[in-house]
Amino acid sequence: MSDRIPVAVLGATGAVGQRFVQLLAAHPWFEVAELVASERSAGRAYRDAVAWRLPGDPGAAGALPVAALGTPLRSRLLFSGLDSAVAGAAEAAYAAAGCAVVSNARNHRMADDVPLLVPEVNAAHLAALDAQRRRTGGGYVVTNPNCSVVGLVLPLGALDAAFGVREVTVVTLQALSGAGYPGVASLDVADNVIPFIGGGEEEKIESEPRKILGTWSGESFALAELSISASVHRVNVVDGHTLAAFVRLGREVDPEAAREALRSFRGEPQELGLPSAPEQPIHVLEAADRPQPRLDRDRERGMSVSVGRVRRDARYHLRFEALVHNTIRGAAGAAILNAELLRARRLLPD
Amino acid sequence: MSDRIPVAVLGATGAVGQRFVQLLAAHPWFEVAELVASERSAGRAYRDAVAWRLPGDPGAAGALPVAALGTPLRSRLLFSGLDSAVAGAAEAAYAAAGCAVVSNARNHRMADDVPLLVPEVNAAHLAALDAQRRRTGGGYVVTNPNCSVVGLVLPLGALDAAFGVREVTVVTLQALSGAGYPGVASLDVADNVIPFIGGGEEEKIESEPRKILGTWSGESFALAELSISASVHRVNVVDGHTLAAFVRLGREVDPEAAREALRSFRGEPQELGLPSAPEQPIHVLEAADRPQPRLDRDRERGMSVSVGRVRRDARYHLRFEALVHNTIRGAAGAAILNAELLRARRLLPD
Amino acid sequence: MSDRIPVAVLGATGAVGQRFVQLLAAHPWFEVAELVASERSAGRAYRDAVAWRLPGDPGAAGALPVAALGTPLRSRLLFSGLDSAVAGAAEAAYAAAGCAVVSNARNHRMADDVPLLVPEVNAAHLAALDAQRRRTGGGYVVTNPNCSVVGLVLPLGALDAAFGVREVTVVTLQALSGAGYPGVASLDVADNVIPFIGGGEEEKIESEPRKILGTWSGESFALAELSISASVHRVNVVDGHTLAAFVRLGREVDPEAAREALRSFRGEPQELGLPSAPEQPIHVLEAADRPQPRLDRDRERGMSVSVGRVRRDARYHLRFEALVHNTIRGAAGAAILNAELLRARRLLPD
Amino acid sequence: MSDRIPVAVLGATGAVGQRFVQLLAAHPWFEVAELVASERSAGRAYRDAVAWRLPGDPGAAGALPVAALGTPLRSRLLFSGLDSAVAGAAEAAYAAAGCAVVSNARNHRMADDVPLLVPEVNAAHLAALDAQRRRTGGGYVVTNPNCSVVGLVLPLGALDAAFGVREVTVVTLQALSGAGYPGVASLDVADNVIPFIGGGEEEKIESEPRKILGTWSGESFALAELSISASVHRVNVVDGHTLAAFVRLGREVDPEAAREALRSFRGEPQELGLPSAPEQPIHVLEAADRPQPRLDRDRERGMSVSVGRVRRDARYHLRFEALVHNTIRGAAGAAILNAELLRARRLLPD
Repeated sequence: MSDRIPVAVLGATGAVGQRFVQLLAAHPWFEVAELVASERSAGRAYRDAVAWRLPGDPGAAGALPVAALGTPLRSRLLFSGLDSAVAGAAEAAYAAAGCAVVSNARNHRMADDVPLLVPEVNAAHLAALDAQRRRTGGGYVVTNPNCSVVGLVLPLGALDAAFGVREVTVVTLQALSGAGYPGVASLDVADNVIPFIGGGEEEKIESEPRKILGTWSGESFALAELSISASVHRVNVVDGHTLAAFVRLGREVDPEAAREALRSFRGEPQELGLPSAPEQPIHVLEAADRPQPRLDRDRERGMSVSVGRVRRDARYHLRFEALVHNTIRGAAGAAILNAELLRARRLLPD
Repeated sequence: MSDRIPVAVLGATGAVGQRFVQLLAAHPWFEVAELVASERSAGRAYRDAVAWRLPGDPGAAGALPVAALGTPLRSRLLFSGLDSAVAGAAEAAYAAAGCAVVSNARNHRMADDVPLLVPEVNAAHLAALDAQRRRTGGGYVVTNPNCSVVGLVLPLGALDAAFGVREVTVVTLQALSGAGYPGVASLDVADNVIPFIGGGEEEKIESEPRKILGTWSGESFALAELSISASVHRVNVVDGHTLAAFVRLGREVDPEAAREALRSFRGEPQELGLPSAPEQPIHVLEAADRPQPRLDRDRERGMSVSVGRVRRDARYHLRFEALVHNTIRGAAGAAILNAELLRARRLLPD
Repeated sequence: MSDRIPVAVLGATGAVGQRFVQLLAAHPWFEVAELVASERSAGRAYRDAVAWRLPGDPGAAGALPVAALGTPLRSRLLFSGLDSAVAGAAEAAYAAAGCAVVSNARNHRMADDVPLLVPEVNAAHLAALDAQRRRTGGGYVVTNPNCSVVGLVLPLGALDAAFGVREVTVVTLQALSGAGYPGVASLDVADNVIPFIGGGEEEKIESEPRKILGTWSGESFALAELSISASVHRVNVVDGHTLAAFVRLGREVDPEAAREALRSFRGEPQELGLPSAPEQPIHVLEAADRPQPRLDRDRERGMSVSVGRVRRDARYHLRFEALVHNTIRGAAGAAILNAELLRARRLLPD
Repeated sequence: MSDRIPVAVLGATGAVGQRFVQLLAAHPWFEVAELVASERSAGRAYRDAVAWRLPGDPGAAGALPVAALGTPLRSRLLFSGLDSAVAGAAEAAYAAAGCAVVSNARNHRMADDVPLLVPEVNAAHLAALDAQRRRTGGGYVVTNPNCSVVGLVLPLGALDAAFGVREVTVVTLQALSGAGYPGVASLDVADNVIPFIGGGEEEKIESEPRKILGTWSGESFALAELSISASVHRVNVVDGHTLAAFVRLGREVDPEAAREALRSFRGEPQELGLPSAPEQPIHVLEAADRPQPRLDRDRERGMSVSVGRVRRDARYHLRFEALVHNTIRGAAGAAILNAELLRARRLLPD
């Protein structure tokens, strides 16, 4: 019998759910014990229910039966890759039932007592869980941000800690996997670019970083004094979001000092040596034409952000390019890292 | 015998040169009479010398013999698609010999008495030709801008005329054809994005618009009071550059007023009904996910710029997306339109 | 008032329907008068009902109201781009009502008295219409083949007429547009190939050519003595199906004789000078690396097939590559050409 | 000091050379001790000389100085990724100097006493080394086949052993990495397919399998009685060649029996448990739309071939699709596996 904590994956048949199953397959602390999806899949073995779209296969989890959403679970730690259409109510219900719901869904990210967690940046926000648990009477929800936001907020976190960050303009070139499957139609990206992503993508990029870089007062989250303008695009890349950022800092800064702040940035995951933590959260690449999705997205198993072209900007202070693996560090990997921090901090329910 | 003006194409075997040959094939005013390329191609029939990469074929021009660069020409109007490595000296020499050199190359764009011409925006800059001809003792060079600059400066010209433009941040997603042939290696853009373009692409975008939107004092060009920050990318699109722009105007403006200024923008090419002039230089698209390269680049035979997503920005005033056909309006078509204006203004040498 | 024959397009909002609308926009003989689609679109103006995915826009047809399938029509000539799920019954019903239904759908292609028409190859099969009209009591259905079949059967028709064709092995690389919209998911073809196409694609390629190259006995179709093996693939190309063919002929043939048979091939459309007829149905390209989709699909407005790499094969007799524009000559354009032949032969209902 | 055998990589800066360096980085038996490339790179540290195009970086080998081709080496085992323009003479020279040259290059593949080795299929051909060493007076050359050939000959080897193979028609869809870097121009494969690959690709596919499936008589290689027709294509896939095969066997065979022969196929590498040997050389996939490059190329670290769509063919006996990782099992990985067999058989020079 395993020492590992049994966990459930909600929305297991979706794109994010499949990534959870893949990343948890050989996890040292967590073992996939239960899989939850829609009614349509319920009762079937996961390998038969899922249209598995990642290289490889589901592994041992393939034999597990899929349960319908809402089924009471024995796992106390739940990873949610649920679609936003159903995540809100379902996650709240499981939290009320005493579970720790570590969610990639957007529904609860901006809630008053729900941490929107990027552990290297705002681990301190876990202090909100006391208030949340008083509200739910039991468990809690912890969220990770939108995929592009992760790629932005890790560098911003490093720069903010060193110099202060005041204003950001960012343009994204986002990968296809972010839209799930079937997601984006091939005819929409063949010899083409789409200058729009639905579901409030720009609004998320303009709001979530302000919470992440803000503070928990003991009673509520105070948003950071930071204004962001974002324009998003979908491009013909499988995995890996590229972000072109322009940043106004608290003061004029030499680009080399900025690079040093980025590459030396560490947080609690690195101090604790959490299993999914990258050794170096932000890698600064020297080559003139980097980062690039296919070459850089898998650095540190897709858990670090790669930054390049850090240079002066006459009107802001700095410009740079950032690259994040949108389904690993930008989604499932981020949630798993959050759960690892919760465990290390002894915050998981028994 | 044709009434058409005999013209020469310099750099005829290159990507821009091929586009010149294609666009001039059935031109009502100009007839391709001479083709100039490197020593390597000299003496051969164009159809044998050129690695023709456009759909279709060279047409009648295919039978013309290719002359080596430097050969005296009988044409007095020359279209230059020369590579910047050779364009500077060659174009100056042909101008000194009395030719009108209408050039897509970057070498002379920022020179003190050379118009950097986008005819709807700064036709008045042709006033500089008097000063230039005094310098050359004969002919002159007129240039068109970098391809991305065209896609930016047509909308900026319209907005500047209506409201004033003060600051611009722009991020580009540029097509493969802009790099010529063989150009970008397939492995560099397969499942990938390159966040860099060599040859000073960002510097061009940050400087050329200031000249185009500036004024000719009678003696020199005064650059517009306008600051621009640009970050460029190469994406896996055949033709059509996408630009994500953020613009601070002279005053707060309602997005609908901005759209109206854009769609109603006209210039001398439209007044004169020049053959290559688009009826409407800037098309404003209403759909949320437009413009898109494959769907919008060929509007008005690739000679108009398509703009969409015109919306408020809290920190600037406006954001929008622009799409330009980089080898037609962004290059060869722009040069041909310039030549048409020169002819209409009776500025061509006899 | 127009002299043009009013026509209706069934399935007008689908991919094939949009291509019909585009190709008929300026047709000299036919005028789009009625548009039919599903209940969901009925009553709305076409431009509002359709998710227009082709460059440009619907043109004048955009203002027409969409009628629901089954609505009695005043047009006597109907172009069908209906999905096979509904085409069978709907087309039979309109034929029974006295219409000429010129259909791209697969349902009636192999029926005993329905011509499967490639006009350069088997115009004689229109003789079957007498038998068909006796059965329907009124109108009739004429079909065009599967898109890949067109690209195969035009060259085979030429070779069969000259030398006899006995056996064919063919492998296809099919474009995305053939699957409609949204069609193939981008993640399925990004950095990928799919070695399968549903809906019986291989079966169609192995059966339809036998009917097209067969004969009408006066009472039924006799299939050609020809065996075909086909394997299909979907590739990341927007338009244009590539076919790699190996052909055993009636006798050993010099590749140059084969090329001559292909390039000199003509049929009734060329003799009659039908509006959509290509001047030369099969273009034989000399370059070693042709045909290629992007460079060759639009030859003769997408209505000719381009063939290259015609060479000896030691086990068969010949190998070659063929390229057909799958939505023009392979679909809507083929149907329009069929209708033009019907009109020229005075076979259209009054 | 390491127990590992010091090896050299010839052509270390090229695409195949980089793959050698990557795959040997943590090899249990071999240690990269010397790197050889052209004059241009000589003297520089490998990490500075190489334009590293694989994800990750060169690792420890990055610090090694690059030696010019022809430099005497202390390593006795050399892996060659040399370009065919120089490989012939260079490999012969190093063999004459007593080295074991395990080569991916094509030059010596068909030589009378050089094994063209796919270890699961024709390990017995190593018997030719005695004759070869008598000729060279020292070392020897062992080659691995063309990348597409590997993907074909592993399944053919399994089928041949079980049923006999007589005739094969194969069409390939080959990945971009096979052309090296910069290799194929992006404009050639964007929205496009190239129906040709230079350098005698089809000729290699039609000849190499006959040697591999043939026998060593004791004095020479007798080619298998097998005729092959191949047509090749380049498609927009990064890694992974797809092959559509039609096979005539020695007798009629049920497709399920064929699948069993394929999946149960084993050879000496599996018996010996060589480090790079896949556990199962040929994986037979059940899904209707498999194998696919992106999903299947990395199976067993890119060292197995994935086969699918095994089905009856009325004219041949069978059809199937095969997928091979063209730079791992199709090139560098194949060579490394060959070297492992040589070591296991104690055939490496001291």
